[in-house]
Amino acid sequence: MAGPAWQLNCPVSVNSKSETVTLAHGEGGRLMRRLLEQVIFPSLGTKLRFADAALLQPSGSQLAFSTDSYVVSPLFFPGGDIGSLAVFGTCNDLAVSGALPRWLSLSLIIEEGLPIAVLQAVLQSVAHSATICQVQIVTGDTKVVPHGDCDGLFMNTCGIGELLAPSPPGPEAIQEGDILIVSGPIGRHGVAILAAREQLDFHPAPLSDCAPVLPAVQALTHTLGFTLHAMRDATRGGVTTVLHEWALTSKKTLRIDEKLIPVDPLTRSACELLGLEPLHLACEGTMVLAVEKNFAEEAVAVLRSISVSQHAAIIGTVQPQAMTPVIIRRMLGREQPLDEPSGSPLPRIC
Amino acid sequence: MAGPAWQLNCPVSVNSKSETVTLAHGEGGRLMRRLLEQVIFPSLGTKLRFADAALLQPSGSQLAFSTDSYVVSPLFFPGGDIGSLAVFGTCNDLAVSGALPRWLSLSLIIEEGLPIAVLQAVLQSVAHSATICQVQIVTGDTKVVPHGDCDGLFMNTCGIGELLAPSPPGPEAIQEGDILIVSGPIGRHGVAILAAREQLDFHPAPLSDCAPVLPAVQALTHTLGFTLHAMRDATRGGVTTVLHEWALTSKKTLRIDEKLIPVDPLTRSACELLGLEPLHLACEGTMVLAVEKNFAEEAVAVLRSISVSQHAAIIGTVQPQAMTPVIIRRMLGREQPLDEPSGSPLPRIC
Repeated sequence: MAGPAWQLNCPVSVNSKSETVTLAHGEGGRLMRRLLEQVIFPSLGTKLRFADAALLQPSGSQLAFSTDSYVVSPLFFPGGDIGSLAVFGTCNDLAVSGALPRWLSLSLIIEEGLPIAVLQAVLQSVAHSATICQVQIVTGDTKVVPHGDCDGLFMNTCGIGELLAPSPPGPEAIQEGDILIVSGPIGRHGVAILAAREQLDFHPAPLSDCAPVLPAVQALTHTLGFTLHAMRDATRGGVTTVLHEWALTSKKTLRIDEKLIPVDPLTRSACELLGLEPLHLACEGTMVLAVEKNFAEEAVAVLRSISVSQHAAIIGTVQPQAMTPVIIRRMLGREQPLDEPSGSPLPRIC
Repeated sequence: MAGPAWQLNCPVSVNSKSETVTLAHGEGGRLMRRLLEQVIFPSLGTKLRFADAALLQPSGSQLAFSTDSYVVSPLFFPGGDIGSLAVFGTCNDLAVSGALPRWLSLSLIIEEGLPIAVLQAVLQSVAHSATICQVQIVTGDTKVVPHGDCDGLFMNTCGIGELLAPSPPGPEAIQEGDILIVSGPIGRHGVAILAAREQLDFHPAPLSDCAPVLPAVQALTHTLGFTLHAMRDATRGGVTTVLHEWALTSKKTLRIDEKLIPVDPLTRSACELLGLEPLHLACEGTMVLAVEKNFAEEAVAVLRSISVSQHAAIIGTVQPQAMTPVIIRRMLGREQPLDEPSGSPLPRIC
């Protein structure tokens, strides 16, 4: 990709005269306060207590706590941007852990020279996404590093959520006979980033699935209770990595059927063209679930009733542990191990 | 500074054959799990739940939540490194907010090519510092970015603490007549980083004050209760920035006396040589406090009984709001405004 991470698909107009972030904005003095008061707080639509910790009063006694740093390049891509990714990504980590996201921290590492308009656009996206997730941004930090020491903008969000049920689902609960489900078409975020970064000429451009999964999680938790054994958003490493981690943790073999796996036509053609396996590609609003056998049809019906998971589908089953942790039945009926990707780095996907 | 941020003062021996972090380590697959299982978890001395949120059960109902990203260069400096800074820094933010630090998240942004031995050294320092602070690292994230997209290693920690008292101190509580105290010699972190980065030839090398302030905060909270009005660790922007923020928030004028301010001889001579104002330089284990007048002597006595604050001193008073937010009485008796630094960026100090 030519140029800095913010340049491609940048939604705001920027030229050589645009005001930019300078090193002095990061020094904790008057200029930093001005950046906070005039740019960061207004864009976020909230005024954080400067340089202090936030005080929280959780209503429950059990909390979930998660963190992610975001280094995606380009910063803006079809279907989202680093701001929506940083909010939805961390909220999704909490949601699939069985928690209602309540509070987020927001930390920025800005490269000197980033146009202020770009920063504003990203922060407005953060604010919009936080509103969608009904989560509050309560504390933050801003660092500025010299030109060349980071590429445009990195972000970190930490999230605190309150558990939806006293015993949240987790891969230890996965049992023989469980049914494996995905909540929607897979691999869309990976393809969207790749196409945007490499400026591949797809029409229409592939859209990231970047979205909050909480509505689906809440409905499932309510309907299924203990029969919902595990959930995970299939981010880096895609569905493949989730299945391998679950096989390892649960000491089972997971068997999936390629012809059952939802892949949208654009993702499929991009993968065929580029020689990629959609199961290895990142999603940012799509989950894998393991559900007790007798409740699988109901789980799919619940998921399909909700917009973010309207294309949910059963993709396989959990079997006794065999030599191979994950087995895939390919389109033409051949069964083979589904290996984890290891040598195909696709950096800065999230 | 020549070379990447990790090279200077590196405590481990590294050569061109040393194993390094690669992009594939960041892809969420088998190599990433290996990096976690073989390098990150052993160095931290803990096994985090991979890719999940941590579950917490706070005992109190009031929490403090704080975040900081760390981009310090060089990664290793006399008196500390990015690992101890990332733990002490965030724990200090919680402590001065009146909270007992309990849980930390740890997020790494690693530049491709960072020697694994350097990563291990930093993480061992994180583990050691967390033990000192009696804080648990419970969740994390690891990203790898291509060579040139970040300089060596950036870290983020988020902290959750439990309030020590139902109504923690804060700058809104500052009153006319309050006494201003610093908990030790000021500006030491700033001078240490500057000397290390620019390879200035000081003997002995200036040491950062990087340390946890919690013991001092606990003793003060216990002894002073409500008469302890405000505390703040004087990080970026130094004591000057804390005083300005307090003047703004409390709508008072703060008056300090230069001859009362503890500055160690090494900091003083470095500042004189380089034309720097110690009040503007960062501390990483030194606080500013505002205490009710009648309890100031007791506060100083308590602070001096504790190792991290043994050189605590009264430096000034809080007065009715005047034209100037912060006034300093210089050594020879002249009074002048203490302006905030704005045009002297000292990037990547923390």
